[in-house]
Order: sequence, then C-alpha cells, then structure tokens
Amino acid sequence: MEDKVILLDFWSSSYAMRVRIALEEKGIQYEAREQNLVDKSPLLVDMNPIHKMIPVLIHNGKPTCESLVIVEYIDQVWNDRSPLLPSDPYQRSQARFILMGRSYGGRKGEKQEEVKREFIAGLRALEGELGEKVYFGGERIGFVDVALVPISSWFYSFEKCGNFSIEKECPKIVAWVKRCMQKKSVSKSLPDPQKIYGYVLQLKQKLGID
Amino acid sequence: MEDKVILLDFWSSSYAMRVRIALEEKGIQYEAREQNLVDKSPLLVDMNPIHKMIPVLIHNGKPTCESLVIVEYIDQVWNDRSPLLPSDPYQRSQARFILMGRSYGGRKGEKQEEVKREFIAGLRALEGELGEKVYFGGERIGFVDVALVPISSWFYSFEKCGNFSIEKECPKIVAWVKRCMQKKSVSKSLPDPQKIYGYVLQLKQKLGID
Repeated sequence: MEDKVILLDFWSSSYAMRVRIALEEKGIQYEAREQNLVDKSPLLVDMNPIHKMIPVLIHNGKPTCESLVIVEYIDQVWNDRSPLLPSDPYQRSQARFILMGRSYGGRKGEKQEEVKREFIAGLRALEGELGEKVYFGGERIGFVDVALVPISSWFYSFEKCGNFSIEKECPKIVAWVKRCMQKKSVSKSLPDPQKIYGYVLQLKQKLGID
Repeated sequence: MEDKVILLDFWSSSYAMRVRIALEEKGIQYEAREQNLVDKSPLLVDMNPIHKMIPVLIHNGKPTCESLVIVEYIDQVWNDRSPLLPSDPYQRSQARFILMGRSYGGRKGEKQEEVKREFIAGLRALEGELGEKVYFGGERIGFVDVALVPISSWFYSFEKCGNFSIEKECPKIVAWVKRCMQKKSVSKSLPDPQKIYGYVLQLKQKLGID
C-alpha cells in the first residue's frame, strides 16, 4: 500500500514547521492542507476533536496530533532513513528532557521585558546544551533541532518588537540556525521572517496593540 | 556490570510514584533516597541542576529527570520485560497524546470551583479514553496507567477539601483505580490516602489556608 500523508497545516505555526521539517528530512511525499484557524474545517474538528488545533498528521486516514508526538511518530514509522531520535536510551531521554516544559510564548499577563529576559535566558541555556556540537543531534540534525529551529523564523519579529539583537545576545544560537537553514529540509519548511513580521504587524493592528 | 539504580524520591509526589511503579513493574532493584524539598541536597542539585526537582533516576551514575522521560527510559533500557509503551507507532503516539498537556494541579489564581470542574471534566475525558478496556494499556497495565494512577492517592484529599465524591462523578475511573491497586507494583508504590490527607492539612495550616 502506498502511504497517504496529509498535514493539516498553517504557514506561520512553528509547531507545524516541526512536522514539515521531519517529513522533508525523511523524504516523505505529503499533501499540506492550509487551515483556517478562525473558521475551523469539519476535517480539523473531526481529526483533532479535543484541541481542534493544527498540526495534525493524517497517515492513511489515521490522525496524530501534537507536534512532538507527530515528529516522533514519523521517526518511528519511517525508521529506515534519517533517524531523528538517537537509539541509545540515555541520549533519547536527554533529547526529551531538553524539550520538556519548553513553550514558545510568554505566559499571559507577563510584561514584555520579562518575556524578553526569559526568552534570552532560554536561548542561553540552549547554547549551553549545544556546546561545541554542530547540531543538538551531534554531527547531524536530530529531534531537538527539528523541534527548536522553527522558532527562528519568528526571531526577526521578536527583534523588531522587542528592540534587541538575538545575534548579539546569543551568537551561537544564531550560528546554529544558519547551519540548519543550509539544509533544504529546514529552509523549505520555514517561512520568510519578513512575511512573519508582516503578519505580526497585521495581528497587532487587529488587536489594537501598538 | 550490575545495574545501580537510585531514585531521588519524595513520598507524596505523584511524579515520583510514576517512577516507582515503573521500577516495580520491571522488577528492578533500586535504592529510594527521600529528599528534603526545602533544604535541597547537593546530590539533587548536582543531578538536576536546571530544575532541582525530584524525581531523578540515577542509573549507573547517570541522571535522568522528568517523570515521563524517566518512565520511558526505564521502559527502553529494561525492554525485555513488562513493556509499558506499545510497540506499534500509532498506538505509541496515542498514548503520548493522552498524556500531553496534562498537569495534576490547577493553575495559580483559579478558584476552587473552577479547579474542581476542570478536574472532573478531565477525569470524564479519561473515562472516554478508557472505554471498556481493563487498563489504558489494554489487557495489561501500560505507560498511560503508570502515568495516571498515582494521582488517585490524592483523590481522598480532593474529596475532603472539595466536598464531592469522585466515585459518584466518575465511577469508571474509580473502578480502574481499584483494578490498578490490585497490582503489587501499584499498591506498593502509592502512599496511604489518609497519610496524604494528613499532609494536606498540615500544609494548609502552615500556609494559613482554611
């Protein structure tokens, strides 16, 4: 049976980007269906009845939700190529630990300065994790890289909104992003940061935030 | 080499209980070291420098943190007995999805009635997941059971504090808890609910909550 793979997608979602990168890394043919997140499609509601959120991967009719669960599913189903998680149990658990409890956004009600400080502290902790390695996965891109690199498409917007330079604060992270972007699986899956910034400005205007 | 397994433990922690159950299910000899969570030991700080929290599993000197990461580590290292996660990728992803984003406590600042309502709604959703199965894992106890059953040792305290009956609201969950408790791996790993309640009363007194 030929695999039929559908991704319920949204262009600016870092979570969806994780899945796109994993699919590209594995060389899996898939159909991306852009979703309307305001007026949700019956397919999205049917495939993710609990959270009604993208990304959802539909593999031969069966849905999987939550970006990291999907990436791990992809890694296990197509385990004959480009392994994302290490096979060693200890290294696997370290990869999972790095990602646990990390969320992209600030918490509701936090002031912008606090969010910025926490964001930079988070990136610096990651610089410590990365150390002198090429990728978090070591010599090749892995689970942690796939999970973390999508947010870099939002870096430009963060810098413009927060009036700071991520490269100045965390040069090693920015160098790692650049290495990741040299891979087609990543560059193809991430949107133009300028486009994201345009979207942020639109959202801000719509929500009356200046 | 004989495995040396140390658990940095705390008796009333549902997260630590997860690890205890998994170790018991696998029949692994381990040394539990009860931790002082106020005055943290150099060992705890050294083994979990980021969060300084229990549980930590130290396997032949190497630490793993975060309860679900630890349970999965145990399942993979001792994969010759009592499998906890299903081997089928789709079933694995479903098990992971059930546990994603679930936390035990209410969020800060939420009123007790809201917390209660959300708690019951959460248990009812789990009843839907359980369906007519004996365990979440099917015919035998699995990853989801190990992850979820520890909170039942707090049920009695919730009922006393919230003035409601979990059995009345969610009879299927309570029946599932009873089935789990028939397993020695579970009953041995969970503290007496009365003891937890005594601890809750002490905490309340200390914090000046009535």
